[in-house]
Amino acid sequence: MQPGPHLDNPVDTLLEKIEIDGTAELGGKLHQFAADLYPTCRSITGNGIRQTLRAIQQRIPLQIFEVPTGTAVFDWTVPKEWNISDAYIRAADGRRVVDFRSHNLHVMSYSSPIHAVLPLETIRPHLHTIPEYPDWIPYRTSYYQENWGFCLTYNQILSLEDGDYEVCIDSTLEDGHLTYGECYLPGRSSEEVLISCHTCHPSLANDNLSGVSVAAFLAEHLAGQDLRYSYRFLFIPGTIGAITWLAQNREKAAQIRHGLVLTCIGDSGGFHYKKSRRGNAEIDRAVACVLKDCGERFEILDFSPYGYDERQYCSPGFNLAVGCLMRSVWGTFPEYHTSADNLEFIQPLSLAKSLRACAAIVNLLEKNRRYLNQNPCCEPQLGKRNLYKSTGGEPVGQQIHARLWTLNMSDGEHSLLDIAERSGLPFETIAGAAEALCQSGLLLPLP
Amino acid sequence: MQPGPHLDNPVDTLLEKIEIDGTAELGGKLHQFAADLYPTCRSITGNGIRQTLRAIQQRIPLQIFEVPTGTAVFDWTVPKEWNISDAYIRAADGRRVVDFRSHNLHVMSYSSPIHAVLPLETIRPHLHTIPEYPDWIPYRTSYYQENWGFCLTYNQILSLEDGDYEVCIDSTLEDGHLTYGECYLPGRSSEEVLISCHTCHPSLANDNLSGVSVAAFLAEHLAGQDLRYSYRFLFIPGTIGAITWLAQNREKAAQIRHGLVLTCIGDSGGFHYKKSRRGNAEIDRAVACVLKDCGERFEILDFSPYGYDERQYCSPGFNLAVGCLMRSVWGTFPEYHTSADNLEFIQPLSLAKSLRACAAIVNLLEKNRRYLNQNPCCEPQLGKRNLYKSTGGEPVGQQIHARLWTLNMSDGEHSLLDIAERSGLPFETIAGAAEALCQSGLLLPLP
Amino acid sequence: MQPGPHLDNPVDTLLEKIEIDGTAELGGKLHQFAADLYPTCRSITGNGIRQTLRAIQQRIPLQIFEVPTGTAVFDWTVPKEWNISDAYIRAADGRRVVDFRSHNLHVMSYSSPIHAVLPLETIRPHLHTIPEYPDWIPYRTSYYQENWGFCLTYNQILSLEDGDYEVCIDSTLEDGHLTYGECYLPGRSSEEVLISCHTCHPSLANDNLSGVSVAAFLAEHLAGQDLRYSYRFLFIPGTIGAITWLAQNREKAAQIRHGLVLTCIGDSGGFHYKKSRRGNAEIDRAVACVLKDCGERFEILDFSPYGYDERQYCSPGFNLAVGCLMRSVWGTFPEYHTSADNLEFIQPLSLAKSLRACAAIVNLLEKNRRYLNQNPCCEPQLGKRNLYKSTGGEPVGQQIHARLWTLNMSDGEHSLLDIAERSGLPFETIAGAAEALCQSGLLLPLP
Repeated sequence: MQPGPHLDNPVDTLLEKIEIDGTAELGGKLHQFAADLYPTCRSITGNGIRQTLRAIQQRIPLQIFEVPTGTAVFDWTVPKEWNISDAYIRAADGRRVVDFRSHNLHVMSYSSPIHAVLPLETIRPHLHTIPEYPDWIPYRTSYYQENWGFCLTYNQILSLEDGDYEVCIDSTLEDGHLTYGECYLPGRSSEEVLISCHTCHPSLANDNLSGVSVAAFLAEHLAGQDLRYSYRFLFIPGTIGAITWLAQNREKAAQIRHGLVLTCIGDSGGFHYKKSRRGNAEIDRAVACVLKDCGERFEILDFSPYGYDERQYCSPGFNLAVGCLMRSVWGTFPEYHTSADNLEFIQPLSLAKSLRACAAIVNLLEKNRRYLNQNPCCEPQLGKRNLYKSTGGEPVGQQIHARLWTLNMSDGEHSLLDIAERSGLPFETIAGAAEALCQSGLLLPLP
Repeated sequence: MQPGPHLDNPVDTLLEKIEIDGTAELGGKLHQFAADLYPTCRSITGNGIRQTLRAIQQRIPLQIFEVPTGTAVFDWTVPKEWNISDAYIRAADGRRVVDFRSHNLHVMSYSSPIHAVLPLETIRPHLHTIPEYPDWIPYRTSYYQENWGFCLTYNQILSLEDGDYEVCIDSTLEDGHLTYGECYLPGRSSEEVLISCHTCHPSLANDNLSGVSVAAFLAEHLAGQDLRYSYRFLFIPGTIGAITWLAQNREKAAQIRHGLVLTCIGDSGGFHYKKSRRGNAEIDRAVACVLKDCGERFEILDFSPYGYDERQYCSPGFNLAVGCLMRSVWGTFPEYHTSADNLEFIQPLSLAKSLRACAAIVNLLEKNRRYLNQNPCCEPQLGKRNLYKSTGGEPVGQQIHARLWTLNMSDGEHSLLDIAERSGLPFETIAGAAEALCQSGLLLPLP
Repeated sequence: MQPGPHLDNPVDTLLEKIEIDGTAELGGKLHQFAADLYPTCRSITGNGIRQTLRAIQQRIPLQIFEVPTGTAVFDWTVPKEWNISDAYIRAADGRRVVDFRSHNLHVMSYSSPIHAVLPLETIRPHLHTIPEYPDWIPYRTSYYQENWGFCLTYNQILSLEDGDYEVCIDSTLEDGHLTYGECYLPGRSSEEVLISCHTCHPSLANDNLSGVSVAAFLAEHLAGQDLRYSYRFLFIPGTIGAITWLAQNREKAAQIRHGLVLTCIGDSGGFHYKKSRRGNAEIDRAVACVLKDCGERFEILDFSPYGYDERQYCSPGFNLAVGCLMRSVWGTFPEYHTSADNLEFIQPLSLAKSLRACAAIVNLLEKNRRYLNQNPCCEPQLGKRNLYKSTGGEPVGQQIHARLWTLNMSDGEHSLLDIAERSGLPFETIAGAAEALCQSGLLLPLP
């Protein structure tokens, strides 16, 4: 048997490394990375996202791109760049009753500048609260319609007395750039796996520092490895970022074979995977196969054209095999888009297990191929090759069953993922069987 | 964008008209039409069906056809024409103990003439009752075997004393014609939608004056409209009528793209739709999609080769996409084929809602087509076209979701019905989204 | 209509014969045949299997094949022939504490010869028991690794006192032959139905004298009949026998269209059918269709590459349409591979009903074909052919429904099995309808 070219090593290394680190230690690192990025006031353009990308660049080889305001990207136009240095509402007594410096959610993202003294009644339509959660600050944006606004707790608004207030938003909304980061890890094939996460939200932890942190650590682990696929990690502003990237990288997009959008992946909920538009792409089956054996609750959701950047990747002109991996689904938990989506809302252990699931998915994609049984007529005599008894700690039955399944189904038409699905056995067990059978010369990988 | 040629108007008009009339008012009209036809003694041939067709002709442009006795129609032969003027059983005291003039069900349909005085024991084998429902008269026929018979209530038969009775059936069974009516409404395409109802039963309301009434009103509403499909309404005797029409109209039958048999559609039960032999024809999916959102109970039944005239339309030599829309399924309710299937058994409201469902099915067929997203790469910016907020009374979410679904799936391969099915949204909402997107130039109808 | 060539007769004869015999009488015969074979000490080679095949030869035309030790068969080699004349463990007092003459399970199959006096501690690793069932003797083999061993009840081992014992296994393990039997019944077509059962187990009744008995009686019933398919019955040692046959009969294997492995088919449990690797082969559907109407509990199991000789027939180089029919599934009942799998564990009635199910499966395969409705446009007039009323004891509805279904679906694309599946009616009812319709000239069998 000719061995497959560096078949399993790189990603096994990753999974093993995760095991060696221990999920607790790894989780701590993932959470710390999110914590470091948490205070930054990000938006879809501006210095907040630039600063965030530079922090990610400390861990991984990230190329940062700047796309000028006004650039046409399909049906859209790259907007003006927004920056902010201060914002407040000051009472007559000089006290800042709402203060951007205490929480960057206090300003509606993309607020145009204002500095005026106004009576409360005039200000009120610009104030946003969540009466149901009177201590939480909502997150609001107005990207494509010039406006200004403040977000505050419901209790704050209750304490405001009538009268005049000094309203100040020291922001700029000017021609500039849209900034995004790209980490490309070349593999043996030019076919790509895309990992995309939106990096445009201010101090919100699950949405989406969780995705940013998991993606950055995954890239860090894969960097420098001998990989089958090439990997492209995108750290981009939501919607306009994905549209901009797709508009300017149509040839690269055509190389994408599998992809994941990572979002809301650090909370304590079970996994949710939203399938690609294709619905039965290899990535869809790979994620389902990994989650089935991950030891956590999970649910597979059908594609819908509403959500995060899978909307763009799965638009009919691209129809890429890109799904969205989450824990709790955006919009379904009350903390979503509020100040309660904070560093306590995301859990180190959840982050580590999310990274582990991503690594297992990558592992599956790297290893999934078709083999050809070299002894297709009747079973080969496994006993004389010492393959009819278990070799490791696994229960005898499962390991031998995996070998029999892999031999039986390796007719050149079925991949290891097909075999894992039909047998109900974990992919790793099937992949291990394939490796053992290759070593015995009973199986050969197909090109 | 070039607008689709008169895309939605005609049938919207129908649905709107039904709304304007109000279901109560419309139901009253439908019921009155059935009531007018109720007393007539119909059979598969003869003056009863002629008189019925002339009444329908008052409402719609109906062409009446006469096919001579003895005409070969596939494996069958058009039978003799049957007419009846009187029938009775008279007791020795001169009293009519069974009298055709009081209910035309009292005579077995196609009874041969007889006039004789016979002892009760000789008459008895010719008497039909329903002991379980002692006040109901059964409906019996003997089309293809010459015989005579009376149907009476079980209580009537109990009251008969032994002795001689004068038995008289003043009927004729002679060479004549089979009569049926056809209303053809030409549309822009020569492809046809068939609506077929059997018109051969005597004083039975649900089976099938309900179908006759709904079909006649549907034809009346569609007449003169600018329609995509051509529509053919058949008012025919059951079995032999459908066979005769198919035998004499094979070229027309080849134009039928979708079809419905309407029967037992006026009672207070929920809808039942029996699928065509094909099982997944557009009509099958259209009816299921409409019933899902009709607000009434419904059940979809698999095709079987037993039932009404779908048996003929779905015979393997034709295999037309014709299903059968019912409320209660024939044969499953005790009133079926008895005098209890009377004008009280059918409900104005049920008739109106049945007509409404038929109109919605026609509406779906008329509007169902494929569109092409003119902006297939990434989402178009709906906001700048004022399409990202709801425009009417519908909940915001559903309308915008419908637009996103319609854009996403309009890749030239999926029809609006495909999109409604995959999204789970009502067809009308999807059709509305398609219309709005066409107006914005984002979508173009495919030819 | 030209009649189909001897369409239904032979197998109907079988089913009728089973009815005439009565299941009780037939069951008695099946059980007696198993009982006659029970005492023989069989293994995968040797005189036990030879003697068994000669007994089968008394009932059916069985050809016995001898394949020399050392013959290469795919990845395997025909092993040495094993024979045994005596074996015991004798205590110091001269008493045989374990005695092959009292139960042939007492010796591990393929034990190499030994004659020595050894202390109990040295013997102990060669003793096998079942502590959970202290009165049962386990069944153990060591075909491909030279070794010796005794199997005894747990109570026996408890009674053994320390000390020296005379250990004797008077066996030979020498170059010889692998022996198997083949009964070939030629039919009108060279396409074959395979019935395979392993015939290598010593005194174990359900596994697999039940299969041997049912297969032999089935062959006896089919012998000399005018059959559509040719039938090949294999009585072979498990695994190595199937591999040997396949290796030496590749051309014959290519003729196999349908096949069944029969095993564990005599106990009182419901049926289990394990589908072929193809999963939707005609045999898979035929068995499911027959079991649905057999009046017993049953379960359909997916294929897996572990089990009995279907493992070999369904290896990817052959991928034959061979499933495995069982009652209780091997390995799932405690008596499996113990002395408790004895003649009381198998039931005459179960054996008879298993034979009946096999006959019904053969019947279905023989009769299953496609017909062409000679009157495909609309229904033919069944009444004038006296086919619209029931002709036998069956309920009217079912028989007429079967005729309508058979007419409707006989478009040249659907087999009687397709029609039975879609209609939900028993295959025999559909086949009866096809026969009646052929007699009326309404249906013609397709070649």
